[in-house]
Amino acid sequence: MEATMNQPAGNAWRRATERNWFLEYIDVCLRGSGQVIFMDNPLTGLLNFIAIFWGACAAGMPQVGIGAVLATLLSTATAYAVNVDRDKLKIGLYGFNGVLVGAGIPTFLAPNAAMWAFLVVGSIVSTVVMLAMANVLAKWNCPAGTFPFCVTTWFVMLAAYAFPALSITGLPHAALAHVPAAASGAFGAFEFVRASLISVSQVWFINNPISAIIFLFALVIEDRWCAALAFLGGAVAVGTALIFGANMGAISDGLWGFSAVLTAPAIGCIFMKPTPKGLLYCFIAVVFTVFIQAALNTACGSFGIPTFTTPFNWAMYLFVLANRNFEKKGV
Amino acid sequence: MEATMNQPAGNAWRRATERNWFLEYIDVCLRGSGQVIFMDNPLTGLLNFIAIFWGACAAGMPQVGIGAVLATLLSTATAYAVNVDRDKLKIGLYGFNGVLVGAGIPTFLAPNAAMWAFLVVGSIVSTVVMLAMANVLAKWNCPAGTFPFCVTTWFVMLAAYAFPALSITGLPHAALAHVPAAASGAFGAFEFVRASLISVSQVWFINNPISAIIFLFALVIEDRWCAALAFLGGAVAVGTALIFGANMGAISDGLWGFSAVLTAPAIGCIFMKPTPKGLLYCFIAVVFTVFIQAALNTACGSFGIPTFTTPFNWAMYLFVLANRNFEKKGV
Amino acid sequence: MEATMNQPAGNAWRRATERNWFLEYIDVCLRGSGQVIFMDNPLTGLLNFIAIFWGACAAGMPQVGIGAVLATLLSTATAYAVNVDRDKLKIGLYGFNGVLVGAGIPTFLAPNAAMWAFLVVGSIVSTVVMLAMANVLAKWNCPAGTFPFCVTTWFVMLAAYAFPALSITGLPHAALAHVPAAASGAFGAFEFVRASLISVSQVWFINNPISAIIFLFALVIEDRWCAALAFLGGAVAVGTALIFGANMGAISDGLWGFSAVLTAPAIGCIFMKPTPKGLLYCFIAVVFTVFIQAALNTACGSFGIPTFTTPFNWAMYLFVLANRNFEKKGV
Repeated sequence: MEATMNQPAGNAWRRATERNWFLEYIDVCLRGSGQVIFMDNPLTGLLNFIAIFWGACAAGMPQVGIGAVLATLLSTATAYAVNVDRDKLKIGLYGFNGVLVGAGIPTFLAPNAAMWAFLVVGSIVSTVVMLAMANVLAKWNCPAGTFPFCVTTWFVMLAAYAFPALSITGLPHAALAHVPAAASGAFGAFEFVRASLISVSQVWFINNPISAIIFLFALVIEDRWCAALAFLGGAVAVGTALIFGANMGAISDGLWGFSAVLTAPAIGCIFMKPTPKGLLYCFIAVVFTVFIQAALNTACGSFGIPTFTTPFNWAMYLFVLANRNFEKKGV
Repeated sequence: MEATMNQPAGNAWRRATERNWFLEYIDVCLRGSGQVIFMDNPLTGLLNFIAIFWGACAAGMPQVGIGAVLATLLSTATAYAVNVDRDKLKIGLYGFNGVLVGAGIPTFLAPNAAMWAFLVVGSIVSTVVMLAMANVLAKWNCPAGTFPFCVTTWFVMLAAYAFPALSITGLPHAALAHVPAAASGAFGAFEFVRASLISVSQVWFINNPISAIIFLFALVIEDRWCAALAFLGGAVAVGTALIFGANMGAISDGLWGFSAVLTAPAIGCIFMKPTPKGLLYCFIAVVFTVFIQAALNTACGSFGIPTFTTPFNWAMYLFVLANRNFEKKGV
Repeated sequence: MEATMNQPAGNAWRRATERNWFLEYIDVCLRGSGQVIFMDNPLTGLLNFIAIFWGACAAGMPQVGIGAVLATLLSTATAYAVNVDRDKLKIGLYGFNGVLVGAGIPTFLAPNAAMWAFLVVGSIVSTVVMLAMANVLAKWNCPAGTFPFCVTTWFVMLAAYAFPALSITGLPHAALAHVPAAASGAFGAFEFVRASLISVSQVWFINNPISAIIFLFALVIEDRWCAALAFLGGAVAVGTALIFGANMGAISDGLWGFSAVLTAPAIGCIFMKPTPKGLLYCFIAVVFTVFIQAALNTACGSFGIPTFTTPFNWAMYLFVLANRNFEKKGV
């Protein structure tokens, strides 16, 4: 995960960050934004923020973009304050969970003072949770992924059912598991590609095709192979969900593909070397991610909370922890 | 857990498996079947399959037997494909979770194409989950048990509530915890012995006394002490459930004893040496397994899924992880 | 966590315990009682028992006190029986989870024969669970806290919904997550201080201000700083719960503060050195404990069980595991 900004602009930026602590901090925050999808590249991170703001403003919810930026600043600042490993800090590993906490909370709760208070505390704590999980998983050379974000934001969502000061706007009604209604409607090639694209943007809670294209472009400039796998992961997930008859509205909204968008590059090229056998392993991991997505839709639905990217994290943990026999990349 | 087939037939089989890769593969699959209840013996495994088919066909559900065999073949083949440790592979440690995934899924879902697709993916993934859990627990010299099966099959069961293509036939209705109805009816010595026997066969989702006797006989030919503990574990569990007033129908169906059938030999002779103090420790583990069974009946009931053998696994983990001071056997 | 009873009475007691195994056993039990709140001091433990009995009898539930004493005797005896590390045994580390199991079970279940049977088995097993968790967490130099009590007692509470012989008297009705009603009423300075005090006594399931003062006094005689942090932790939690509009009746009953009463000294002075930066870290941990309390009120409410001190344990795990860069004390 080395930055490959070898253009003159990239070199100038790098030299500037080495001379000025504030520019370094901005650089680390931008890399954190890029690391949501494994990219150690500040330009990728900047484009991600632009895509978030585009989608958030188009949906009339600018607080999602503001929350993402604020949380990135806070979670990264927390990492500086607690003296974390500088090498990991500088490539943004203590910022990406913050980005998602900051985008996630305003997606589901009304933007009142209590929500911002939870967002501030959640952002700070997301770095603590990240450090704790990374320390635990380091014993098996397994990355923490975005599970620190999932756990932190689960606490906030569940807390909204106990604190009247938090106002729920987007959470599903808690409901016991029940036999699902048969899906109806048609799903053509255009809907298929669009759902795969939206799956990419839903990694950041954004339901917008233009944002999706910006997110993908931000990936392409750093790692084309990873971008292709992210899109293909979403497509395989959309296809799997269709085959088993999942609700087509949810598929169109990218809600069946966003975890697979992360599983595919994680297993396919980031944490393991992309060999033919590895790609088959990756394909099975992506399909199983969709099974976990279905399972957690049921389980989290009982509590009235979203799954977030937990299906990706659990699948990634299983397929990384299982593997001591393929060639693994360093984490 | 060494095979003790010292008869001429056993020796001939062993030599045949050393010369022919296909016979070796069959041998490993059969040992995987035997390892469901800790036996590294292909004859035990063969008898187990016979018992499964007998009970499955008697209940008009041959798909349970077919699923068990198919899943064993797939999970074992997956273990070959990902280059696992050959010594552990050869004694069937990457097959027994597959057996249970393959018997469990058709017990609760109708045998349509979607079910078979889930069974195929679940069988393959059960080996990945087994490798992941075994790698994690190896840090404490603790075996993974059948928890990989429980987790994999939980995902499939919960997914059935999100995918209309899967058709639920045997899952309990999801229901919130509520004060239980008082048990009524009589439970004599005959019912007691029968319920203990059925507890043995319910390890494989089979509710059939003849199957139970075949399963016990398959155990006896390899390890009489283990067979006795398995039956006694079931009997103690049946007694404990009766004392605390559990539903008698469920007790008769072996649903209160199947986890204890595994806890008793696991703690009593497989992972620890059978000393008097160890047997007292084992007895407490069996009683606590029944408490966990009761607790998980409530918790899993909220999600509309069975507990599977999770009570055994959690009790086994606790009592194995706690113990660094008795004499422990190698795992 | 060294005892600091340097008074002549303390020295006489210590010499007596060294000469007589029964007095040693009583000493270890009393230290176990003190360790509920991190104090290795038999006098603290004795005062804790007195406070429990005072509150339990005032509420007409002497079984809570009797259960606490019986469970301490049993869990400590179990530790002797399984040959645990003598140094840890002697400072009461295998007794404090028993105290809480023994006070907790009779708080929620009617005192019939089945309840006492569960209390006896639960007390014995609490030591097994403690050993298992301590062995696992030792890999990261993280203490197990009171989570062994939480898990053991959760099993018992959930089992009460499956066993008619157990009679539920104090458990909340299981209910799906729902939008909370707005809080109403006034909460003055007197109520604030009282709620903070009751939060201290609710660590032991006691809702009584006199008991709370005895508990605090028992802390003061061993460690004034820890006593101050415990009270302040409760006060910060009460304030946080008020700000976000939690139910005032529950706040008055100490149900929002009891976890923070433990988080504050744990992070503020027991497991880490009390520096200014450490106290800020402690403050964030306390606020996040309240968020986890809110989240688990929702999640555990779905199962009809209390959270117990799980919010403390999870916050403590996260903030201890995250921290490899502050100065940590030995555990």
